[in-house]
Amino acid sequence: MDLKSLIRDIPDFPKPGILFRDITTLLRDPEGLRYSIDFFTQKCSDAGLKADYVIGMESRGFIFGSLLAYKLNSGFIPVRKRGKLPAAVHSIEYELEYGTDCLEVHQDALQPGSRVLIVDDLIATGGTASATAKLVQQIGCELVGFGFIIELRDLQGRKHLPNVPIISLIEY
Amino acid sequence: MDLKSLIRDIPDFPKPGILFRDITTLLRDPEGLRYSIDFFTQKCSDAGLKADYVIGMESRGFIFGSLLAYKLNSGFIPVRKRGKLPAAVHSIEYELEYGTDCLEVHQDALQPGSRVLIVDDLIATGGTASATAKLVQQIGCELVGFGFIIELRDLQGRKHLPNVPIISLIEY
Repeated sequence: MDLKSLIRDIPDFPKPGILFRDITTLLRDPEGLRYSIDFFTQKCSDAGLKADYVIGMESRGFIFGSLLAYKLNSGFIPVRKRGKLPAAVHSIEYELEYGTDCLEVHQDALQPGSRVLIVDDLIATGGTASATAKLVQQIGCELVGFGFIIELRDLQGRKHLPNVPIISLIEY
Repeated sequence: MDLKSLIRDIPDFPKPGILFRDITTLLRDPEGLRYSIDFFTQKCSDAGLKADYVIGMESRGFIFGSLLAYKLNSGFIPVRKRGKLPAAVHSIEYELEYGTDCLEVHQDALQPGSRVLIVDDLIATGGTASATAKLVQQIGCELVGFGFIIELRDLQGRKHLPNVPIISLIEY
């Protein structure tokens, strides 16, 4: 299946000069949704990735993260923006183009040695994925890999990630 | 399986006097996640709910909404806060305790006659679910039902919803 044909390009979103790769057109297509998840699961299996937990980043990472957790028989753990998680959290600040942002995970969600797979819809410069990796590695988790629906190769986000398998379904 | 035992109660979140029902402890449990989705799917099937699209509300509704779409062989459509969706949207404003909020869906995501199931993690007073229902009914969609992991019965949220099947897995 040509997954790329189900991705919509939207110029100048969220700001001028950015070509936004919109996955909502993939998600609303039942065959596209099914195929992308099954293909994603197969790629994880081919790469020998076994995870106790799949981590998905707020908020589009919740979609494929939870689906992949279900398919891999793993638990799902959300990583959220500041102040959204109700119990005690570990936090990490990371740099954006202008200013900083913050990601949080529940303190009791992960233990040292937990095997985690980090999933998001898209990797661009890798800032969010890299910060999430640091967050789980500071806890002492074993990072087994990353999974993305879309990888923007030109932005070389994977250069900023630890040396573990990185799976992406669609490349630009 | 006793799903309620996997829900964590957090007092005074997000503000004093609110007892927050935290589903992250359910999500991180592989058996709990699997059972809740399979049970949810079975309940939809028992109720004869057939949907072209499952709609999930940002952001916890993305988790069970996309899982249910996958399981029901439907498409998944996200309903988001203002300004988050990249293409042209239909919007609806709705009242909160203080002020108003806004929900949006892509204009080309739904057509008149599309059968939709609205899914969220929790129904309290029903404000978000009711607004989402109005949004899809204004488009001319056929609303086939609602699905929630948790229903807070005392708040009588279902009184504010249209007369269609309402499925909830856990009640308080």
